[in-house]
Formats: sequence, structure tokens, C-alpha cells
Amino acid sequence: MNQKIARFFEEEQPATPCLVVDLNVVAENYAAMRAALPDSDIFYAVKANPAQDVLKLLVELGSSFDVASPAEIDEVLAAGGRPARISYGNTIKKQRDIAYAYQKGVRLYAFDSEAELKKIAEAAPGSRVFCRILTDNDGAEWPLSRKFGCAPEMARDLLARAPKMGLKPYGISFHVGSQQTDPGQWDRALEAAAKIFRDLADRGIDLDMVNLGGGFPTRYLKDIPAMSIYGGKIFDAIRQRFGNRIPRTIIEPGRGMVGNAGVIRSEVVLISKKSANDNKRWVYLDVGKFGGLAETMNEAIKYPITSERGGEKGPVILAGPTCDSEDVLYEKTDYQLPLNLEIGDMLTIHSTGAYTMTYASTSFNGFAPMKAYYIR
Amino acid sequence: MNQKIARFFEEEQPATPCLVVDLNVVAENYAAMRAALPDSDIFYAVKANPAQDVLKLLVELGSSFDVASPAEIDEVLAAGGRPARISYGNTIKKQRDIAYAYQKGVRLYAFDSEAELKKIAEAAPGSRVFCRILTDNDGAEWPLSRKFGCAPEMARDLLARAPKMGLKPYGISFHVGSQQTDPGQWDRALEAAAKIFRDLADRGIDLDMVNLGGGFPTRYLKDIPAMSIYGGKIFDAIRQRFGNRIPRTIIEPGRGMVGNAGVIRSEVVLISKKSANDNKRWVYLDVGKFGGLAETMNEAIKYPITSERGGEKGPVILAGPTCDSEDVLYEKTDYQLPLNLEIGDMLTIHSTGAYTMTYASTSFNGFAPMKAYYIR
Repeated sequence: MNQKIARFFEEEQPATPCLVVDLNVVAENYAAMRAALPDSDIFYAVKANPAQDVLKLLVELGSSFDVASPAEIDEVLAAGGRPARISYGNTIKKQRDIAYAYQKGVRLYAFDSEAELKKIAEAAPGSRVFCRILTDNDGAEWPLSRKFGCAPEMARDLLARAPKMGLKPYGISFHVGSQQTDPGQWDRALEAAAKIFRDLADRGIDLDMVNLGGGFPTRYLKDIPAMSIYGGKIFDAIRQRFGNRIPRTIIEPGRGMVGNAGVIRSEVVLISKKSANDNKRWVYLDVGKFGGLAETMNEAIKYPITSERGGEKGPVILAGPTCDSEDVLYEKTDYQLPLNLEIGDMLTIHSTGAYTMTYASTSFNGFAPMKAYYIR
Repeated sequence: MNQKIARFFEEEQPATPCLVVDLNVVAENYAAMRAALPDSDIFYAVKANPAQDVLKLLVELGSSFDVASPAEIDEVLAAGGRPARISYGNTIKKQRDIAYAYQKGVRLYAFDSEAELKKIAEAAPGSRVFCRILTDNDGAEWPLSRKFGCAPEMARDLLARAPKMGLKPYGISFHVGSQQTDPGQWDRALEAAAKIFRDLADRGIDLDMVNLGGGFPTRYLKDIPAMSIYGGKIFDAIRQRFGNRIPRTIIEPGRGMVGNAGVIRSEVVLISKKSANDNKRWVYLDVGKFGGLAETMNEAIKYPITSERGGEKGPVILAGPTCDSEDVLYEKTDYQLPLNLEIGDMLTIHSTGAYTMTYASTSFNGFAPMKAYYIR
């Protein structure tokens, strides 16, 4: 937690749970990405944190935007973003939602199936389309399933048909998995993308763009490689796979842009043991899996959690405040908190700027979504 | 889906996704529980579905209420419920939330730890308290972890201390796991409860109440025993374990009260295959894990899903509309849908009256929570 956020808590004493995001950290992340991949365009993944403050800042900085739904298009436009800077990256769209986007001026669409391509052809004629391909996700802490993407051969054949359908075949996208800590994973996907570029060039179709997706990690419990290392490795792979015909590249950071900019403050509601000779304390917080920490599902994302108390630490099981037994944050992962921790203490849950607020349930168990504050 | 709900869809053509709950089915479930366990008081678990229409109906029918938070207390009172009919069953409460409940007239509180008992003693002096004990959850489709409850010996010792703290030791609660399909599971917990009653009687403390919890299942894919069979087996177990000193019993049905009263209607957004020779279709709906179907987590709850189309069926993988790769509903479970299913078709997701609406995220990926309709 930086000093500015610490001062905010000190001065404002906001009710808990709450999220505080330092917009300057977002700006620093944007600058680091620009520097690491100077030839790539940044399309911020709005779903990571769609707050107007974040979107307005990124509009000012010159970012483009990856959106998942009409509501996200509206948010970007409300923040001053231009439709030409929007990519409708969800491969699962209702046709009327495509029509809505088209009417708002969006001209860049993702697909991964024949049926989706047909919908785009009908509802967004003349638009540029890119096809998402399936990749393996070794090394990702929040791996992606086979839900998105298709086999490279299918991508090639569908892109080849796009011109006859009145669409502009524009490129290939892939996603190496969110919170990807192995920069080498991009190379395998780039190899498949380059082959599609060559195959289609043989058929007289020139693709322009490779969408490198997101996956750039934020620091949770483990250290991660610096953004500059990602940039270098990815650019090396692009050169190796595409030779002297380097395509336009775009990246879709979400977690990497806002994750480390935010912290959640939570009150300790209860500390207990299950029997007299239990050696692990249960520590119950006022935020849990259904209040914003959904990514603790299967203990996938391990947020650093700290107390202001010093002194010796001991093992804890961490859980949320609802009556849902699934609302346990960390039981297998070894978390330690001070032995003198008390009910009513405040804990800081770090690197929670991404994928927290929007996951929060409307009112599960009657708990309202937490408030969020965006500061500079 | 009953005819009344079918007619509602036919006449109203509501936008999807949406939930429709038939309040008459809730009333029937209430009557069946009354008949099956005539000597038990029903405390409806508000968290299962806190809609005012449901709460008002249950107030009319004479139900009591199990609440998890101050907001749920407010909802019950707004529906006309009396504070004397409320049990604050969450074992994880902020002290100021206990004070709020006390100020509203609530006088019955759950606990499972020394610290929680102290909070209740300070904020709700003179109240009745019951202690939740840990039980095994064999046979539950949505099993409970060790998050709630303490060892029976600890429960006994804490209840023994309650009078000195100005509280009335009232009883024991347990929970055999939600969607519990083995009625015999109640017997093991009752055995432990009866032992605590005897031990405390030896110390001159008479407990009054056994809270049998919830766990009563609703019908999903598999058939379940009738409520009358549950009632018979549970009452037999009470007689066997407590002999001629039968305690007051209460039950806390949530899922069993509203689950089968509701259906979700969802539009098919996309049907696709991942490669030319794939034999399973991916079917993407406009509702998913973050829009209300959270209990498909790890494919725990298996909702029946039907199409109005006839004809031959084939295997499908079912997924939600968000860009989150975790938003897959059923991939391992064998779901079949008609081979002639088309994009734009409506599907019915049955038995979705409980634990759906309140789990919905505020706006994940920009998708608003679905609308709910309560009809008679």
C-alpha cells in the first residue's frame, strides 16, 4: 500500500469493506506497457475495472478499449473514448448487441465460430474481424478453458470466407491465460498465428493484426517478471515468427493495468477456533468470495493480506462474512497473520484493483457491494 | 415448468435472462413442510430468496425467519414480519450489527465461538443463544465446509457459561449440508445434540431447542425423497435420541421452500464447435455463473435445462455470456439438447427459485442482473 492510500484511510476512515485505487499507479502501468511494447497498441480490457475514473484517465493517456458488452461500450463513450478506438472482443454476442455497437460506430469485432461471423456480417457490414484461436495455458494462475477460440485451421478457413460475406479479415487473437507468469507462452501462440498469416497470404488474403491478448500479471504473493522482460521476449518472438513482415500488434491488459493500483480494506469480524486444541485460527472478514473476492475460487489468486500489527505470526484460515460455506478465501494456502490480531482490526488486501468490484454480488446474504474510491 | 409460468412467458415475453417464481408453489412447499414436521417451527432462510413477494407470503402463512444480516432483518420487517419471529442465524456478526438487531427487537442469536458469544452478551443482553455444532456432510450436493460450527464439547462449555454472561442458553443447531439427499444424515447430528442436552442437564442447565437447520433438497436432475419421508425419519431420530424429553425443534428451509418455485428463461446466444471434427456443441446462454448461476461452481448443482424443440438430442457444453473462462456451467456433466437447437432459441432452467438472484454480480462484463417476476 502506498503512502497516498494510507493517508486516505487515515483521513477519511471509510466504512469497510472498501476498495481504494490510486490512479497514478494506473498511469505508471500504462507508461510501463508503452515503453515495454512501443509498437503495440493498448486496448484496455474494460471488464477488469470499468470505473469512469479509470476509463477517463486511460482516454487521456491515449488508450484504446476492449469491451465485452453494450454497457461497456456506453461506459467508454461516456468517458470520452472514441468508437474507432473500441474493439468488441467478446466472441459471444447477441446479434442485436452487435447492431447496437455498429450503430455507435464500433468497427472491430472478435469471433471464433461460423455462426458469430454470420451475425457480424449481418449486423455490422464492412467491419474488420479477427478470429480468436485456442492456445494452451501452461503457466497461467487463472487459466482459460476451451471456452474461447477455435482450432487454427478453422480460424484460417473462416477468415478466408470473410470477404465474400462483406467483412474485412483483419487478424488473429489469442489469450495465453490471465496472470501468465511465463513470457515464453506467447511464442507458441505466435507460431500458430504466423502460420495462418502465411496460409492466407497464399490465398491472396493479407491479414494486418495480431492481438496478443492480455495475461500480463500483477504482483500477488509471488514476484513476477518486469513488464520490460515480457516486452522483449514477445517482440523477439514476433520477429522470429513473422520475419520482415511484422504485423500491427495490439495488447489487451486488464489485470496488469489496474491490479496493483488498488487495495481493499476489510474489518476482522470474528476470530475463532473450532475446538479447544485447534492450532489454526479462523479469521472472518467483512468481504468474501461473493463481495468481490471471486478470484479466490479454488484459491486461484493469492492476494497478499497484511495487518498493521507487528509481532509474531501464526497460521490462519480466511473466510468471508456470509452464511455460505463456499465463502472461504484461503484454507489450503499458508496464510499467516499476527498472533495478537483482534476482532475489529483492519486488514489490507493488496493488488485488488482488477476483477473485484464487478464480481461483487448485488446483495448476497443482504450484504451490499463495497464502495470504491479513486484517488490521484 | 407449470402452465401458469408458461402462460406468463407466452403473454409477457419478458426480456432475457429473467427469473419467474410461482408463489403458489412456495405456499405448497410451506404446507408440505408443515405437514411433514408438524411439531417444528419453520424459520425460512431469507438468503435463499429475499424478495418481498416471497417474504410477505411467508409472513401471511405464519412462518418465522432466519436472517444473515441487518439488511435481511429490514426486509423481513418491511414484509410485515415480527422481530420475535426472527433468528439471527449467522455466526459471523459485527458487534454493531448485533446491536442493530437488538434495537429492532431480535432476541434469538446463533454463535459458534467464545468471541461471538461475548459480542452477543454485550450488544444483546438477555437474549437467547444457540450454538452451532460441526457435523459431517456426507450426501450433500452442496456440502458445507468447516466454516461454521464448533466441536460439541466446546458448544457444551460455551453454553454452560452463557448464564453468567447474562444470556439464556437456548439450544443447539447444526446443518447437514445444503441439498442433502440422505434423510439419515440428521440422525448423527441429533445424537451429538442430545448428548449436549444431557451433559448440560447434569450441570443444571436445561436447553429448549434443537435447530435442525436446512438442507431439505429441491428436485434438480435427480429424484429426491418426498418431504414426508424426511419428516418421518427426522422425527423418529428425535424420539430415539431424546426419549420422552422432546425439545422444541425448528427448521430453516431455504432451497426446499423456493427452489422448485422458480425457473430462469435464457436465450441461446451462440452455438459453435471448436474445430471441424468436434462432436460436442458449445452452447452459450445469456445467463451464466456470474449472472445468477453461481451454484454451478464445480458443477455442484445440476439444474434441469430444457428446450421447447422436439427431436433427437446430442451432447453439449453449456457456458455463460461473459469473457471469463470460468463462466462455464457444465462441461463434465452430460447435458443433452436438441440437435436442431438454434441461436435465438429460449431455454428453460428449472428449479432456480433459490440461490440465484442474490448471487448475481452487480455488472460483471457490463451485464446487468436479470429481472425477477413473482406471480400467483
